[in-house]
Amino acid sequence: MADRRPLLIKGGTVVNSDCKVKADVYCEDGIIKQVGLDLKDIPADAKVVDATGKLVMPGGIDTHTHMQLPFMGTVAIDDFYTGTRAALAGGTTMIMDFVLGPKNESLLQMYDRWRGWADAKVCCDYSLHVGVTWWSPQVREEMGTLVREKGVNSFKMFLAYKDVFMLRDDELLQSFERCKEIGAIAQVHAENGDIIHTQSKKMIEMGITGPEGHEMCRPEIVEGEATFRAITLASQVNCPIYIVHVMSKSAAQAVMRGKEMGCVVFGEPIAASLGTDGTNYWNKCWRHGAGHVMGPPLRPDPTTPSYLMNLLAKGDLDLTGTDNCTFNANQKALGKDDFRSIPNGVNGVEDRMCVIWEKGVSTGKMDPCRFVEVTSTMAARVFNIYPQKGVIRVGSDADIVVWDPEAVKTISAKTHYQAVDFNIFEGMKCRGVPVVVISQGRVCVENGKVEVVKGCGRFIPRQPYADVVYSRIHQRDKTCQPQKVEREPYTGPVIQIPSQ
Amino acid sequence: MADRRPLLIKGGTVVNSDCKVKADVYCEDGIIKQVGLDLKDIPADAKVVDATGKLVMPGGIDTHTHMQLPFMGTVAIDDFYTGTRAALAGGTTMIMDFVLGPKNESLLQMYDRWRGWADAKVCCDYSLHVGVTWWSPQVREEMGTLVREKGVNSFKMFLAYKDVFMLRDDELLQSFERCKEIGAIAQVHAENGDIIHTQSKKMIEMGITGPEGHEMCRPEIVEGEATFRAITLASQVNCPIYIVHVMSKSAAQAVMRGKEMGCVVFGEPIAASLGTDGTNYWNKCWRHGAGHVMGPPLRPDPTTPSYLMNLLAKGDLDLTGTDNCTFNANQKALGKDDFRSIPNGVNGVEDRMCVIWEKGVSTGKMDPCRFVEVTSTMAARVFNIYPQKGVIRVGSDADIVVWDPEAVKTISAKTHYQAVDFNIFEGMKCRGVPVVVISQGRVCVENGKVEVVKGCGRFIPRQPYADVVYSRIHQRDKTCQPQKVEREPYTGPVIQIPSQ
Amino acid sequence: MADRRPLLIKGGTVVNSDCKVKADVYCEDGIIKQVGLDLKDIPADAKVVDATGKLVMPGGIDTHTHMQLPFMGTVAIDDFYTGTRAALAGGTTMIMDFVLGPKNESLLQMYDRWRGWADAKVCCDYSLHVGVTWWSPQVREEMGTLVREKGVNSFKMFLAYKDVFMLRDDELLQSFERCKEIGAIAQVHAENGDIIHTQSKKMIEMGITGPEGHEMCRPEIVEGEATFRAITLASQVNCPIYIVHVMSKSAAQAVMRGKEMGCVVFGEPIAASLGTDGTNYWNKCWRHGAGHVMGPPLRPDPTTPSYLMNLLAKGDLDLTGTDNCTFNANQKALGKDDFRSIPNGVNGVEDRMCVIWEKGVSTGKMDPCRFVEVTSTMAARVFNIYPQKGVIRVGSDADIVVWDPEAVKTISAKTHYQAVDFNIFEGMKCRGVPVVVISQGRVCVENGKVEVVKGCGRFIPRQPYADVVYSRIHQRDKTCQPQKVEREPYTGPVIQIPSQ
Amino acid sequence: MADRRPLLIKGGTVVNSDCKVKADVYCEDGIIKQVGLDLKDIPADAKVVDATGKLVMPGGIDTHTHMQLPFMGTVAIDDFYTGTRAALAGGTTMIMDFVLGPKNESLLQMYDRWRGWADAKVCCDYSLHVGVTWWSPQVREEMGTLVREKGVNSFKMFLAYKDVFMLRDDELLQSFERCKEIGAIAQVHAENGDIIHTQSKKMIEMGITGPEGHEMCRPEIVEGEATFRAITLASQVNCPIYIVHVMSKSAAQAVMRGKEMGCVVFGEPIAASLGTDGTNYWNKCWRHGAGHVMGPPLRPDPTTPSYLMNLLAKGDLDLTGTDNCTFNANQKALGKDDFRSIPNGVNGVEDRMCVIWEKGVSTGKMDPCRFVEVTSTMAARVFNIYPQKGVIRVGSDADIVVWDPEAVKTISAKTHYQAVDFNIFEGMKCRGVPVVVISQGRVCVENGKVEVVKGCGRFIPRQPYADVVYSRIHQRDKTCQPQKVEREPYTGPVIQIPSQ
Repeated sequence: MADRRPLLIKGGTVVNSDCKVKADVYCEDGIIKQVGLDLKDIPADAKVVDATGKLVMPGGIDTHTHMQLPFMGTVAIDDFYTGTRAALAGGTTMIMDFVLGPKNESLLQMYDRWRGWADAKVCCDYSLHVGVTWWSPQVREEMGTLVREKGVNSFKMFLAYKDVFMLRDDELLQSFERCKEIGAIAQVHAENGDIIHTQSKKMIEMGITGPEGHEMCRPEIVEGEATFRAITLASQVNCPIYIVHVMSKSAAQAVMRGKEMGCVVFGEPIAASLGTDGTNYWNKCWRHGAGHVMGPPLRPDPTTPSYLMNLLAKGDLDLTGTDNCTFNANQKALGKDDFRSIPNGVNGVEDRMCVIWEKGVSTGKMDPCRFVEVTSTMAARVFNIYPQKGVIRVGSDADIVVWDPEAVKTISAKTHYQAVDFNIFEGMKCRGVPVVVISQGRVCVENGKVEVVKGCGRFIPRQPYADVVYSRIHQRDKTCQPQKVEREPYTGPVIQIPSQ
Repeated sequence: MADRRPLLIKGGTVVNSDCKVKADVYCEDGIIKQVGLDLKDIPADAKVVDATGKLVMPGGIDTHTHMQLPFMGTVAIDDFYTGTRAALAGGTTMIMDFVLGPKNESLLQMYDRWRGWADAKVCCDYSLHVGVTWWSPQVREEMGTLVREKGVNSFKMFLAYKDVFMLRDDELLQSFERCKEIGAIAQVHAENGDIIHTQSKKMIEMGITGPEGHEMCRPEIVEGEATFRAITLASQVNCPIYIVHVMSKSAAQAVMRGKEMGCVVFGEPIAASLGTDGTNYWNKCWRHGAGHVMGPPLRPDPTTPSYLMNLLAKGDLDLTGTDNCTFNANQKALGKDDFRSIPNGVNGVEDRMCVIWEKGVSTGKMDPCRFVEVTSTMAARVFNIYPQKGVIRVGSDADIVVWDPEAVKTISAKTHYQAVDFNIFEGMKCRGVPVVVISQGRVCVENGKVEVVKGCGRFIPRQPYADVVYSRIHQRDKTCQPQKVEREPYTGPVIQIPSQ
Repeated sequence: MADRRPLLIKGGTVVNSDCKVKADVYCEDGIIKQVGLDLKDIPADAKVVDATGKLVMPGGIDTHTHMQLPFMGTVAIDDFYTGTRAALAGGTTMIMDFVLGPKNESLLQMYDRWRGWADAKVCCDYSLHVGVTWWSPQVREEMGTLVREKGVNSFKMFLAYKDVFMLRDDELLQSFERCKEIGAIAQVHAENGDIIHTQSKKMIEMGITGPEGHEMCRPEIVEGEATFRAITLASQVNCPIYIVHVMSKSAAQAVMRGKEMGCVVFGEPIAASLGTDGTNYWNKCWRHGAGHVMGPPLRPDPTTPSYLMNLLAKGDLDLTGTDNCTFNANQKALGKDDFRSIPNGVNGVEDRMCVIWEKGVSTGKMDPCRFVEVTSTMAARVFNIYPQKGVIRVGSDADIVVWDPEAVKTISAKTHYQAVDFNIFEGMKCRGVPVVVISQGRVCVENGKVEVVKGCGRFIPRQPYADVVYSRIHQRDKTCQPQKVEREPYTGPVIQIPSQ
Repeated sequence: MADRRPLLIKGGTVVNSDCKVKADVYCEDGIIKQVGLDLKDIPADAKVVDATGKLVMPGGIDTHTHMQLPFMGTVAIDDFYTGTRAALAGGTTMIMDFVLGPKNESLLQMYDRWRGWADAKVCCDYSLHVGVTWWSPQVREEMGTLVREKGVNSFKMFLAYKDVFMLRDDELLQSFERCKEIGAIAQVHAENGDIIHTQSKKMIEMGITGPEGHEMCRPEIVEGEATFRAITLASQVNCPIYIVHVMSKSAAQAVMRGKEMGCVVFGEPIAASLGTDGTNYWNKCWRHGAGHVMGPPLRPDPTTPSYLMNLLAKGDLDLTGTDNCTFNANQKALGKDDFRSIPNGVNGVEDRMCVIWEKGVSTGKMDPCRFVEVTSTMAARVFNIYPQKGVIRVGSDADIVVWDPEAVKTISAKTHYQAVDFNIFEGMKCRGVPVVVISQGRVCVENGKVEVVKGCGRFIPRQPYADVVYSRIHQRDKTCQPQKVEREPYTGPVIQIPSQ
């Protein structure tokens, strides 16, 4: 059982999104109680973590996971237990998962189902986004209930998965208006579902049944188009929008353009798109190719990850998740003769922090402060749980990672904690490793060991109207409304339309 | 009656899209017979036009008109007679009009109706595009007939005018595939119809009933989005695409991006978007504002025309039309209390050449060769009537304009030839004026007088598979097909899906 | 004399760059001692400021002023007294001024001169950048001394003012290498001095002697070119670079591109470029036009301020100054017959906060947190005085502004505090006004009154190697060095070069 | 000896830049006499070339070669004989070479030297650009003479090769003004010479002496910067500018931006930048790496060639050369221990047509008409020898290539005609091959055999003021001049400046 004693982290450098400073951190009852150099009244029995030469950072928040998701005829192999344990192993102390049901199902019932699954198993704190996969007065109503009573402030809509999850533009407009009304943020999976539907069929007709067909029937422009469309639709009803899993240059550019136009838009690249690329679909080994299949796909342009990281570093993309949704070889094998049946999803929840540090910080693209911002702080701000999460500050939750920027590890499915039998980052050498991970003030990872308690993670409810999201939205409602031109009425002749 | 004698144009400088050269031009039987400096065997009775100090250019081709269009409860006031007479007066010797019927009507019947209207009245040569406003096996079939038997090689689809003309993305995909199959070019009206539908209602609810509401409920991003979507859809089925009436920077940028990605895409700005802007919707005079209402609207960003002209000059936009569709004050007045009922449309067919010369050539943005290219040559190439039209060359039709680059005229509804009682270019001073205009070898405009013959214009049939459009499409079909990866089959275990 | 009692700011909402929270603030001895809702041990005699309904923000930091600058034959009219008093009146509690001497003068002597001028007069804290207007071993040496001993960590180089301040590319490279060596940031005035030199002469030859000539001989591309060049040069020697006074879209785009490429570059738009534009140079009143003359000039494209604000809001530009350098009508009049003799400079130090709030926050482009970041926090971080300045936090300097987002004021030279007789923002209505301003824990502005003490501001020394600037630079030195390819040597024949 | 009989090319498809048409071509006395389907009066003894199933196109014009250039201590191995023979073998019927002398040498004397070298050896027509490598009144004067008397209308200036060829910005401005004055086009080699000078030294100090160092000390931003600077400088004096050897995305983007701003700018990518990339510098074989060394270097970003081809296809880049300047292994070996001594230059003159066809036409990026435009027509137009060259038309020179789009060849140094012992396109399979090449009406290549006559090529003099270059320049001088604002004089007080 994890240690419940008070905790003192000594000798490290505390890194928040705004600055880096030498300071000790003292935690009690799961809360950070003191930060500084001359801490007072530290109990003698406090557990001490030596962070000398290390960075002490807010635990990572993974904005996008799908633990034990029932999908494409099977169920994701990492569940809320193995998934959150792996998260902690990698320095992530909170995940945000998606409630995702079929059309015509009650959102509230689905939410309850997910809570049931998760509460029993999670090892770290978590929260839930809710997918809006169909549109009706009932859905509209339940969205309100979820926000008012269930701690949800984010809904995901799909422009893809035709006939399964996809909404049409007019439904999207209505769902965006509803989000705005209730202070939620609209998340979108942005790919053009009609194109994918048509083109994937053609691919099969051409005899292209392997994983490479998955990408070729939905190349990056198909993602870029939908991303720009979603932003356009949202901007017209002054609804804040959040692009989940930015996988391509085209999609990232759509986000950038949205920001340049002044839209309230957030872009979420993921560990996969920042750490590897779509050339893997052309791998001669089917299992290797299939292991990378996800939607939207990774892109064959090998300069994509570096480009996305540049944008993440400079602020055009905002925060990071993983879309963690893992399937073993025997599950992926459902699509061995037709890529359309390969369950979509890859790993990431465990490796996200290391991958971003390696590709972002070690390369000199971002500094540790920005690393904290994109792996934790912005997630907390956007989803309105800041400063409870996302910062090392007196009063905040004691979710902390002690990071050794000099340590090195090599990612492998053989050694990872996730349940899945494959790792898309296999062999990546990461300079920068989490050495101690603390959740709710308890040390879960130390000396290379992971000790967690099933079910001890908490559901973290979120309030609507996050300031970083809605401050500008409200201001626009006040000052950017269309204005009428005052005119003399037209008094000239009017043509008669013959009655038909 | 126009003069049928042989015709000699003497002393001028012939301007084609590739070069400018001093040369006389001799025409007989409506055909250019000689071009050069020492012409032979000129009959003594040939009519001589003195072009000393003038430019001798191919007559303009207006790619986009709507003469006598039945629309929004009324009928466009310029018909095929007044419209083509005005065209000639302005240096345009051929127009391309649109057959445009309601959903569920036969395209062939509509085509016949238009032919009936036009053949009786046109004073210059013309051609017809056909609008595809709904989708069915019949439509698909008739498109083939129109191409094979009726001289049509271009079809227009709408992303706007919801419930009237609009197709959904899956229908668009099918229509594009059909165009590709039969060697036609897919034209699109690119605006997001769902947004317009929703936002125009809101505008009225907010009490904004004037012309400014017409623009504010469909700002330029709504055009930019749809333009990019249309290009994306077309690119996925390797169908050439043509964006009619590029009205905004956003739409133009979508075209540019399409070209950068290697799509076969053509962009058509129009006289209106090159010559004036959307600030007019905010004019205090209702009739003035309403006089500019068209779809997509002109843009309030006053730097738009200059920007579009820069792109047209450098080749990111390709050719020019007008969307000429005119309504008198008493017709526009149908929408005096609700902008949604203002018949959409503006003039342009008469003034296009002068406006583009003034804004493009006089400003030093393009040279006369490029002027010829964008007002005539590219239209002929794209719609596959080159070199019959679009060039001054032995064997080409004798459609010619003699241009005085030093003359100046001021555009006004008081003096124009169009039937409509308003001119969106009112007061524009144009340096560069057509002084003689020749159609089928006959002088129609001379000494400030216009002499035309109703019905003497010809329908110009067009063949499919225009080289400048389809050469690359065919090449791609040959060399850019998706390729399958050859792999060993997956032979591992496959999970069992329980039967449901 | 300002009140030295402890100070309690009650009932307000504290806004920092990361979040907004209801909290009281207690200050003593010029330092913030408590922030929160249940403060303890507040002395009975503490002065209480009621901030109910107001925002409590870090005082502004103006990164760019020229008080009492000797320039172009005269001396800027706002000195360190009137200038800093005006700063406080407008909510700015710290300025950064420039030591700027002629070629061949000792930087250290110049620095001492500036300290002498400023220390005697400043009403708020200040700091000094140093201009490097020539290049020599002595300059190189003195830069080191300034950093080690004089609290300077930023140097400005000029690509313009040929023969006066301008350095050539090879000298720029050396100055950048030197900055890097000593942990300073390289600031640049980016305009192509050779072009200005040539073209301004031509302007006069053409008889264009008025202020419009000032802009036309150095249009925005001249600024864009130099900005991109400076960034390129700095990037090659891995030196961080800071573009002062970003005045145009072109320059801003160069900064954006630099960031996209991963350069460590910061962009500083100023109140003038964010709040007004260069159409003023075409004003019929000479004094009005001359009043706006500065280098680089404001731009005639009227969409410039809004564009720059969009970029500032989204993070492509980073922080804000004013280039405040004011001259009265009789000084500007030195150039009444030749714009080249109009002393360059405009106001801003007093109005910056209001202008940015009005154009940025009131318009919904940025939220109050980002406002704090761009007016204060980023300046403190970049120039390495964070968290002493730039944040409301226990231990930070009590430089605070209480802001009323509902109050309105109209800017005018008639009512402003600056000494100068002109205001480039004349007549601008600002929604959002500083109502109480606190410097070093003393209330300087309250109830519409300004009470300051000459000379009570402090020189704030700055350490080199600011983390937000140098963290990435150091990382790159470690991991992004060019790597040699290991090869077998070439052993084939080598041609003989004949001796010459 | 080549056959001087009249020539009939039968059964082919003539491709010009504007259209493709089935036609026979009849030539006599080196001139095209008839083009069409029913040619008349063909002499019985005319040589007949069967072009059935082939394309008949204008011979290629290589805008950029350096035959037998004395450079870096040695002399380019392909001289005017082997170089032009190879050109013909590859379908190029005219080259433009550069007169290029050291500083302080007379341009006229250099010109004479080059004429002497070339006239004796050339197998095809040629022309000469002249390098302006220093600045003085004499240079200024001689430029005039070269234009008036020597058939030169283009001058190249260098922003690189510090102390050897490089001009400073103020000298560039003067040279551009001079070009404008005399109707010439200003060509530039755009790289920042100061950066290269500094950084190449550092590279050596770091022990990086191999070819990879050549690229790393001058990465693409160094080219992009200089390109944008050159365009900016030229635009300010309204001088047309031509960027030779566009090697990178950055440089191409600078050209695009120049065009978007309305500058008269032309961009010339070369066979090397369109056909291969800079990863070759990292090759383990020194000779291989060195074989690719040229300035500016090829770029390691492997997507560069495809990107440049996209821009060339769509008109953002205009025409193509090769910078052919070849050195054998034993010459390259001068730099075996220091990349700075590797003679700069690669092949291309023979393979340009095939490489562009393969990478441009076979991929579906451009159609055969655009191929003709970028390999021949635009060169003729820009350098003012159109329609003498660059088109298959009655009266034009009989420089013709018969192209088999179905034939395939593989490029190799083993089989090429160039003298050099290396080929940067080694192993490239080209679908599309010149099967018959005709120069001055004589068949030089047929049945895989090349038969040329040394010295039978002609020097083609060029007139200044090419229409496609100067039409817009002149128009701008007329209509885009800065305008003065008419104002009342300032009559207020003026400050007294104390005399110094």
